Amino acid sequence: MLSRLSLNQETVRQWSLPELADGCARAGVRGVGLWRAPVRQYGVAAAARLVRDAGLEVTSLCRGGFFTAEDPGERAAALEDNRAAIEEAATLGTATLVLVSGGLPSGSRDLRGARERIAEALAELAPYAAERGVRLAIEPLHPMFAADRCVVSTLAQALDLAERFAAERVGVVVDTYHLWWDDTAGAGIDRAGGARIAAFQLADWVTPLPEGALLGRGQLGDGAVDLRWFRERVDGAGYRGPIEVEIFSPALWARDGAEVLSEIVERFTMHVG
Amino acid sequence: MLSRLSLNQETVRQWSLPELADGCARAGVRGVGLWRAPVRQYGVAAAARLVRDAGLEVTSLCRGGFFTAEDPGERAAALEDNRAAIEEAATLGTATLVLVSGGLPSGSRDLRGARERIAEALAELAPYAAERGVRLAIEPLHPMFAADRCVVSTLAQALDLAERFAAERVGVVVDTYHLWWDDTAGAGIDRAGGARIAAFQLADWVTPLPEGALLGRGQLGDGAVDLRWFRERVDGAGYRGPIEVEIFSPALWARDGAEVLSEIVERFTMHVG
Repeated sequence: MLSRLSLNQETVRQWSLPELADGCARAGVRGVGLWRAPVRQYGVAAAARLVRDAGLEVTSLCRGGFFTAEDPGERAAALEDNRAAIEEAATLGTATLVLVSGGLPSGSRDLRGARERIAEALAELAPYAAERGVRLAIEPLHPMFAADRCVVSTLAQALDLAERFAAERVGVVVDTYHLWWDDTAGAGIDRAGGARIAAFQLADWVTPLPEGALLGRGQLGDGAVDLRWFRERVDGAGYRGPIEVEIFSPALWARDGAEVLSEIVERFTMHVG
Repeated sequence: MLSRLSLNQETVRQWSLPELADGCARAGVRGVGLWRAPVRQYGVAAAARLVRDAGLEVTSLCRGGFFTAEDPGERAAALEDNRAAIEEAATLGTATLVLVSGGLPSGSRDLRGARERIAEALAELAPYAAERGVRLAIEPLHPMFAADRCVVSTLAQALDLAERFAAERVGVVVDTYHLWWDDTAGAGIDRAGGARIAAFQLADWVTPLPEGALLGRGQLGDGAVDLRWFRERVDGAGYRGPIEVEIFSPALWARDGAEVLSEIVERFTMHVG
């Protein structure tokens, strides 16, 4: 099970990219999930070399998306930016580009229209991505982000979008932090099946939420999520891919990166494996 | 439509109970939703007289619930407290006791078990409430409250619980703040029908969320919720009852109560009626 563990870069944002590569190699962790901003800052080709030389697999790139703008200029810019993200994913050697689809445009209350614009963007981008060996991965975000980040709030909604396309072109992300509360998540995982699940990510749910809600994720085992239940359900659906730990937490960022990673490995073994 | 407007007391918590009764009468608002703590502080019988003398209808009492404890002593205490809430509702002359069902017990990750304990508590309390002319009203709370306040997160889940009982004994609350993001909410409203909808409450969704997420609700029209869509759907399902405005917002509490109420009437006319 530990061979499937991947560390998402944002979990240890106190680490530079070389520190990340080195730290993972030392800890025996074989996968990393990367983010565009630090990768671009380091240089995409250089980052690809760095992780390859460290023997690491890039399990995903975060993130494309933000497809919901109504303004034609903004929409064109978003598509252009997503094409760049697809190129970056290809250069990094990962088949998975995670999409945060976008919230409601300012002043809009039209969730259905926003979701339809996501489908249009997927139709535009999926062939471009496929030509480069990259799959688009729709991530449902917790409903508390529906207004400002992502109008795709449930796995069922993500699948309604993804299933308009071939499974090898558009998949979904199962992230425990976003889905844990939903009693239909299990049915969604079964519906997705191993072929449609492009990524499986872990974080725990802890309270109280901080202002803005974004940086309130918990270390594995510290919160309300039955992580093992999710892992078994996803495996039961036929998923055999990496299991990525993605925790946005100032409390973890304030600590020594190697210590955080060692704790993650321990918690992963205890609560997931 | 304005004749259906009800003001939930927490929306103008800067007002004492006599100020609330007087302010609503002056503004031509004929319904109020009350909360147990201020009512008990004033005296339940005295509060009932006060609002009756002001010509107001009590459209709901908030709140019973918190049914999810595993400890037998805690469970007995919760049931006892809910019987008291039922008596208070009866004294106030309202047929609707709103339930916030409770989150996960400390250290638990068993959402299904917690939901089952809610069903057990409903079975225990519904006959007691019915004898006193009070209906239990299950309120699904936004999924961001699933861990610490209410494991009932969707209208579908609330209906799964409520439908175990007769519609005149156990109903559901449709609150736009909690349900707006959910593309299955409309189907849930249809499924509930007028007979099962015990209360219809309004608040708008605004961002960013404040720390703890509880006090971040928006004035009608300030946010992402299509309030008129909800009102039309609820009416279309056969609901003819009061429409209660329940906004927890320090920004509204800092203002003059009469000014806030006048703004609510204006916004209600513009965005709901």
